[in-house]
Amino acid sequence: MPVDRRKTKWYGWGWNEKRYDLKGHEKEMFGYLGKTLEGDFSDPSNLPVDVNKIKLPSSRASKNLVDEFARIMGDKNLSTEHYERLVHSFGKSFHDLVRVRSGRVEAAPDVVLYPETIEEVVALVELAGKEGIALIPFGGGSSVVGGLDAADPKGRTVATVDLTHMERLLNLNRISQLATFEAGAYGPSLEEALERRGYSLGHFPQSFEFSTLGGWIAARSAGQQSNQYGKIEHMLASCRVVTPKGDLVTLNVPASAAGPDLDQLIAGSEGTLGLIVDATVKVHPVPEMDDIRTVLFKDFAEGCEAVREIVQSGLNLSYLRLSDSVETDMYQHLGTHNMLVEIGQRALATIGYGSEKAALIVGAEGRASKVRREIQAAIRICRRHKGMSLGNKPSANWKRDRFHHPYLRDTMLDHGIATDTLETSITWDKALDLYHEVKAAIEGALAEQGHRSIVMAHLSHSYTAGSCIYFIFIYPLAVGKEVEQWWPVKRAACDAIARLGGTISHHHGVGLDHRDWMAKEKGKLGIEAIRAVKERLDPQDLMNPGKLIAPIL
Amino acid sequence: MPVDRRKTKWYGWGWNEKRYDLKGHEKEMFGYLGKTLEGDFSDPSNLPVDVNKIKLPSSRASKNLVDEFARIMGDKNLSTEHYERLVHSFGKSFHDLVRVRSGRVEAAPDVVLYPETIEEVVALVELAGKEGIALIPFGGGSSVVGGLDAADPKGRTVATVDLTHMERLLNLNRISQLATFEAGAYGPSLEEALERRGYSLGHFPQSFEFSTLGGWIAARSAGQQSNQYGKIEHMLASCRVVTPKGDLVTLNVPASAAGPDLDQLIAGSEGTLGLIVDATVKVHPVPEMDDIRTVLFKDFAEGCEAVREIVQSGLNLSYLRLSDSVETDMYQHLGTHNMLVEIGQRALATIGYGSEKAALIVGAEGRASKVRREIQAAIRICRRHKGMSLGNKPSANWKRDRFHHPYLRDTMLDHGIATDTLETSITWDKALDLYHEVKAAIEGALAEQGHRSIVMAHLSHSYTAGSCIYFIFIYPLAVGKEVEQWWPVKRAACDAIARLGGTISHHHGVGLDHRDWMAKEKGKLGIEAIRAVKERLDPQDLMNPGKLIAPIL
Repeated sequence: MPVDRRKTKWYGWGWNEKRYDLKGHEKEMFGYLGKTLEGDFSDPSNLPVDVNKIKLPSSRASKNLVDEFARIMGDKNLSTEHYERLVHSFGKSFHDLVRVRSGRVEAAPDVVLYPETIEEVVALVELAGKEGIALIPFGGGSSVVGGLDAADPKGRTVATVDLTHMERLLNLNRISQLATFEAGAYGPSLEEALERRGYSLGHFPQSFEFSTLGGWIAARSAGQQSNQYGKIEHMLASCRVVTPKGDLVTLNVPASAAGPDLDQLIAGSEGTLGLIVDATVKVHPVPEMDDIRTVLFKDFAEGCEAVREIVQSGLNLSYLRLSDSVETDMYQHLGTHNMLVEIGQRALATIGYGSEKAALIVGAEGRASKVRREIQAAIRICRRHKGMSLGNKPSANWKRDRFHHPYLRDTMLDHGIATDTLETSITWDKALDLYHEVKAAIEGALAEQGHRSIVMAHLSHSYTAGSCIYFIFIYPLAVGKEVEQWWPVKRAACDAIARLGGTISHHHGVGLDHRDWMAKEKGKLGIEAIRAVKERLDPQDLMNPGKLIAPIL
Repeated sequence: MPVDRRKTKWYGWGWNEKRYDLKGHEKEMFGYLGKTLEGDFSDPSNLPVDVNKIKLPSSRASKNLVDEFARIMGDKNLSTEHYERLVHSFGKSFHDLVRVRSGRVEAAPDVVLYPETIEEVVALVELAGKEGIALIPFGGGSSVVGGLDAADPKGRTVATVDLTHMERLLNLNRISQLATFEAGAYGPSLEEALERRGYSLGHFPQSFEFSTLGGWIAARSAGQQSNQYGKIEHMLASCRVVTPKGDLVTLNVPASAAGPDLDQLIAGSEGTLGLIVDATVKVHPVPEMDDIRTVLFKDFAEGCEAVREIVQSGLNLSYLRLSDSVETDMYQHLGTHNMLVEIGQRALATIGYGSEKAALIVGAEGRASKVRREIQAAIRICRRHKGMSLGNKPSANWKRDRFHHPYLRDTMLDHGIATDTLETSITWDKALDLYHEVKAAIEGALAEQGHRSIVMAHLSHSYTAGSCIYFIFIYPLAVGKEVEQWWPVKRAACDAIARLGGTISHHHGVGLDHRDWMAKEKGKLGIEAIRAVKERLDPQDLMNPGKLIAPIL
């Protein structure tokens, strides 16, 4: 069943009724944040505006156009209502949320379409071409990079195409361990369909509950077990994209030397070439078991060395998440790594695991014998790097809460605290330098504005060549000037990433927010290559215009 | 040191002095072939023509043009001599060899250039643009798909750019296990440079001794240990391509969500976008040990099931090569699997390993404990499929000879026997059907011409989703009508692959020979996407014109 958007927060993450469970740590946490950020955040006084008072630009969709779309997909799968337009105006970035919470919605789709079949998608794309309508592909709506903004740079009528009514399992090829789904399938619905049949995709991004297969592919998503199963582009066997010039269908073969790999051109195209309507992905039998441990290192650098050795030794681990000392410390305040609290900070400090300590979550899944072997081998490497195993209780808490953390951002915003995240990947030789410089850039940009900040990071996915470094930064919100306060910080972080040679995104994508850095990263000719494909498949620039690459106006 | 082309066969494979060592089995083999193919092939009576009598079209390169090129790279790195032009006219396909052996060379490069630096490459591409000269990038020259034909569809002057003087190791990043090489490095020179420093790329295509890094990337090469290390496009971290519109340089990061993956657009571009001048690839420490075993199955289908189970169980094996019964039988005639002979056919047959038996070469490499574990686990799976382990002697012979088999093709041609190969990859559910249909298509097309044939195949690389199936076909050569005889056979095989849903190439590439099937495989829009990039980066169609996609004339 697709998610009923009425049951989810228009102004934040997830289900209406659900709040992040601080397990009685509220006072401790806001006290800690108040002390660290030098402010009083104890009251939830920064609540979102009344949704009914948010004024949207009036819809430019003519009655005639709405009728034409309705002829394709029926009245009930089409909307020009306020709430539907509102929730399709943005994604879920900090940048999006601070705007929508305060009622600042400058652009909204003129009409929202919910096609149910490929034929309907083909017909609506044809109509859009005929009428010159910009189309915004929309899955779960969880973009955190401005990938869904409902504004057309050319000022045309905008229709958001919400694909979440297309979520069927079309084929399960057990022999070849491949599953074909319609692209609008949400994470839980996709996993349930597979697990009922004994299989799993194993793709669990933090957005899992509110993101879709098509969105994952469009933005090159990574899941928390990507160390084992790869990012979504590595799981992708073939797909079908409806473009304004027709269908682009890739061949489902395990590997090919028949020219450039078109799947890898489509992955990361962020809806700018067309609508991904179905995809075939590699699946595997539901793992017999998993085991997730926490290991404590004396500092982040030593933990990084251990993680590098683990991946370079060819071990096959699912989770490998190394928190820096700030994040390790923060988890205690969230009750996630509560064993650290139980063991006692002081006791740990006396044996050398002091304020610089770094926690690693390391997990394996599959057959029991393999899980035991990989975990033991990983723990052995950790021990050589003075890693102390804390068993599997702290990580069990982390796993239980792993899809809930995005809810915390809303609670923080209620309390006047900003939380944003960004990520990169970089080769091992430059990883620690990048870590320090990006951290310093964020702290510096906030200090310039007179703010204290908490900047933490973790390695979320690692490769033989390097790692993804994921940053979380927290600072006192300048209410009423949220965007003006945020952009210089974001810019400083992105500039530091680019300067050190990291990619502007490891798994969030580009959208509008990362466009300038992507242009530098790909180079003039790289962008020209992508633009050439875009112009050939979408000569009217109808598909998610302005995202990924700057439009030529 | 680059290979001195004077020391290699202009009409065939490898070093002038080297012949395939039949180890005293000559008479047995040609006897067997004579019986099976119904002919007398005992005499080497089909020798190549005298090289000095081969007439090439006269060079269209004006003295002025040659002088301009010489200003860029010096007289000694440029040639318009007969021998240089001849050896740069073709690759090493059967189609190429039968033409050049009989002196039929319709097109040859007008000038051959050996740049030594990136600056020289940039300058020569600029000059080519100014003068409208077609450029054919050339590495080891081992293309077997017509990727190097020195003909321009537009009839312009043609310069072949031989990159093998650019072969330096530019950087070894030990921490990140990455090595950067100039693209003209031959396999042995690249591996030696790495192994001296304790590392290995682990890419060993059959062409290893006479192919280069740039060529591997251009054609999406696979090595014999690709099961463990991936195809070259999976090892590729970044590269630099000199195009007529400037340099395209990709960012060296372990993974990225910053738009489409340009490395995967360049891999498989076959020189049509520009000249790959350097590349960074993933390397690993030289394995502590390897172990390669041979296992005998009662038939190919049972072996396929075992291989599928091995890869789907997540084992990490280097070699996984399963021969069908014809190939298993043929190896005995070559003295490669001679343990089968020692054990005795009759003894084997009495316990159920009769004329349908299929041999699997299974190998692992890395740390000793890992090698033992993976081999044992693989053998356990094989046993469940009635696979009988023959130990490591037959596979040691195979490993010793693994780069020598291409030499055999020349011996066979001398004796009036045609040998050609082609490969595909396909999902497991369709693999056996494809195997039978392609085999039948080849046999049928030859039978239609009144010829007997030997068609054999093996799984050369396997994936969780499917496998590469590699076909070898042998038949009596129609001397004087070699190409006319061959095309219908090739066409029938390729049509069968396309009909069954395989890719037209798993690791040989497209060139001229597979262009029509690639067009079908990628679809109209897929080809348009590739063409759009080509036209943007190479608007004059200077780069390897006519290869990969059909030119618009």
